[in-house]
Amino acid sequence: MDFVIIGGDAAGMSAASRAKRNQPDIQVTVIERTQDVSFSACGMPYNIADPRRPMDDLVVRSVDAFQKQGIRMLTGYEAIRIDRDARMVHGAMLQKEPFSIPYDKLLIATGAAPVVPDIPGSNLPGVMTLKHLEDGRRIKSFIAGKPVSRAIIVGMGYIAMEMCEALRERNIAVTMVKPRSTLFPWMNDQLSQVIHQELQSNGVILQLGFSPERIEKTNRGLKLCGADTELEADMILLAIGVKPNSRIASASGIETGVHDAISVDHRLQTSDPDIFSAGDCADAFHVVTGQKVWIPLALRANRGGWAVADNILGKSVELPGIAGTAVFKVFHLEVARTGLSLQESVSAGFSPVDTVIQSRSRAHAHPGSFPIWVHMIGDARSGRLLGVQMVGREGAAHRINAPAVALHTHMTVEAFSQSDMAYAPPFGPVWDPLLTAANQLLKKM
Amino acid sequence: MDFVIIGGDAAGMSAASRAKRNQPDIQVTVIERTQDVSFSACGMPYNIADPRRPMDDLVVRSVDAFQKQGIRMLTGYEAIRIDRDARMVHGAMLQKEPFSIPYDKLLIATGAAPVVPDIPGSNLPGVMTLKHLEDGRRIKSFIAGKPVSRAIIVGMGYIAMEMCEALRERNIAVTMVKPRSTLFPWMNDQLSQVIHQELQSNGVILQLGFSPERIEKTNRGLKLCGADTELEADMILLAIGVKPNSRIASASGIETGVHDAISVDHRLQTSDPDIFSAGDCADAFHVVTGQKVWIPLALRANRGGWAVADNILGKSVELPGIAGTAVFKVFHLEVARTGLSLQESVSAGFSPVDTVIQSRSRAHAHPGSFPIWVHMIGDARSGRLLGVQMVGREGAAHRINAPAVALHTHMTVEAFSQSDMAYAPPFGPVWDPLLTAANQLLKKM
Repeated sequence: MDFVIIGGDAAGMSAASRAKRNQPDIQVTVIERTQDVSFSACGMPYNIADPRRPMDDLVVRSVDAFQKQGIRMLTGYEAIRIDRDARMVHGAMLQKEPFSIPYDKLLIATGAAPVVPDIPGSNLPGVMTLKHLEDGRRIKSFIAGKPVSRAIIVGMGYIAMEMCEALRERNIAVTMVKPRSTLFPWMNDQLSQVIHQELQSNGVILQLGFSPERIEKTNRGLKLCGADTELEADMILLAIGVKPNSRIASASGIETGVHDAISVDHRLQTSDPDIFSAGDCADAFHVVTGQKVWIPLALRANRGGWAVADNILGKSVELPGIAGTAVFKVFHLEVARTGLSLQESVSAGFSPVDTVIQSRSRAHAHPGSFPIWVHMIGDARSGRLLGVQMVGREGAAHRINAPAVALHTHMTVEAFSQSDMAYAPPFGPVWDPLLTAANQLLKKM
Repeated sequence: MDFVIIGGDAAGMSAASRAKRNQPDIQVTVIERTQDVSFSACGMPYNIADPRRPMDDLVVRSVDAFQKQGIRMLTGYEAIRIDRDARMVHGAMLQKEPFSIPYDKLLIATGAAPVVPDIPGSNLPGVMTLKHLEDGRRIKSFIAGKPVSRAIIVGMGYIAMEMCEALRERNIAVTMVKPRSTLFPWMNDQLSQVIHQELQSNGVILQLGFSPERIEKTNRGLKLCGADTELEADMILLAIGVKPNSRIASASGIETGVHDAISVDHRLQTSDPDIFSAGDCADAFHVVTGQKVWIPLALRANRGGWAVADNILGKSVELPGIAGTAVFKVFHLEVARTGLSLQESVSAGFSPVDTVIQSRSRAHAHPGSFPIWVHMIGDARSGRLLGVQMVGREGAAHRINAPAVALHTHMTVEAFSQSDMAYAPPFGPVWDPLLTAANQLLKKM
């Protein structure tokens, strides 16, 4: 069988490796546009923060290693068109020669691409995005090559936050701008304020409500112009979000859906039964709503790759879906979420009730404790837990997995509030912050 | 209504406070043998570690504060007998005068007492146990009052581990002894070895298979004698375990069960419908087996106290049970467990399959990562998750709550393996250690 994979990142290489390992006689071909496969994209901000570490530290497994495993690795090959009738992928190599590769089963794992705002100057040198390892190398050598003392980050998502910390680590002054007036639209305002303060106390300047209109080159560097204000910097990072690389699918008549992501069923099959999709280009079912969502995150990509490998090898695997569990670190804060936000709960037709509590990371009278904030949402009609957000200096990141598991099982807030959680003074109060939140939320439901 | 509570610790004071708050016209009386109520017993080792902190830091709420709330606080009163026909508690004050207090509803929250081995010399000065705040004060003033350079801890449970760290913190040489040859009988051997090494690398001497036969006074201090060996020390801590204080219940014909703990139903009601029991003296249903167990821990005590208050006030509350979730810190290690051990799984009639994996606390190539070990047990017949144990320098304590929630919902290992857990490089690998363990375990099931 010819198993062809477009895209050599998390989903693609997980699928390639698992398929080849579980059925060695299968022919696996990976078509990858860049020279890099299987690297830790999420590690790039932390790598950029440390000038001593080479960017290639982030390569989890080399092209060579995959080739030795018997996987045909076509790096520098760009897939352009899928001929579904002939079961053929057409494309061009970097040197522009065309290629055509037949498939029996095809995986589209083309990932996502940064959204670049359509403003003049967004392609000037010093204006960066961060998605591929090559982007990371470019940013790192840009910082190493010339004095970069001021940076502007456009956008305030996860990557923006992590890059903000990385650039401050490199002693670069950072201004963050975004058109909307809220820091995180999905986040409870009280929790959002905690992050706002953390950014400010680490010297980051926040300009909410700033709409970039153009970028200009100046004598000293770059200038980001809004309606009334101009900001100068040596470097500008565009981090306003990503969009799925689904064009190759939609152009060949494969169904796309939410946010133009490629529609897949629980088996990761697209509208063409011989074509699968996984990773940041594909959608998923949300375990809380049962509805399709597009939340591109690394775990789902890896898991999706495995599931595709199993499914094409005849071991039927259905993925239940995602809870939207995510965590990021910004300076000394851990920020975590799972499930729906309040607005998403309303949109999904629930009758949400929510609460915010402040607890502590260690027991009463235990030294070294920090505050922990928990925002919890339940559905007044069904009693179900809908979502949780947490912020704190310690104890937020790993705690979020407990409500994530609860969301997978459609647990009620009441049942969740009765969970037997761990207690010892160095790790939290007797009533875990999550239990305190659930107890408070129950009073309102 | 006369609501009488025997025992002013976690369960008793939680019940007293909640009952009075929710129905101010109720008469609440607390009978407490000691002078201390509502203190953080689990905080005592950490307090003992720090000579500058007064032991009373651990008092969560004072006797005065409860009295101001309108609760009748009878400290220094020892309940001795319950006359169930007359609905009366009889006892004696410290000054030996007898008292008799009538009740409509009674809560027995007498807690647990340290097991003192029946060997000569166990009552010598310098031989200690740790349960009440007064025990903590006694240990602390003993250390402050004379040069204590060597201590022996008999037993290797949670309190033994925490006290071992506390005494090392005070620069006291510690030898730990126990009769059995295994460090933690409930723990997977590979994980147990990690703790063994941590204890040794912190200068603790472990003598497994040492059966204490007697304690003697010497010129310089104390001597603990086994069959062949003798150990000298300035202080000996007996920490071989606790037993429920259930005698007052059994003597009045109230049913007791596992480990002689007071038998309660899901409403915390004893075999007498007017008498409830909560806290370390009462048993509980295990959510994995549905069977009665006695696992005395702080969260259950607090939760049980609340449930009793609700039930006597007419708001019927049923507690689903416990998963046996627990965590402790020993030097730089976090040690956590939930659910059944392998031996407990066999005893409960399951067909357990288990696996041990070693993962890391941070992502590939992220600096500062430490190993994390996960032991996971599933049932081959039903596919259910049965139990998890974790050890690591970081990331073990809070992670345990996710499988704890899964146990409450009788989740299968397969469903658990599909949980959407959080990922960011500072907090773990893409595949959370728990997911890696579940994936590995699935291969064996």
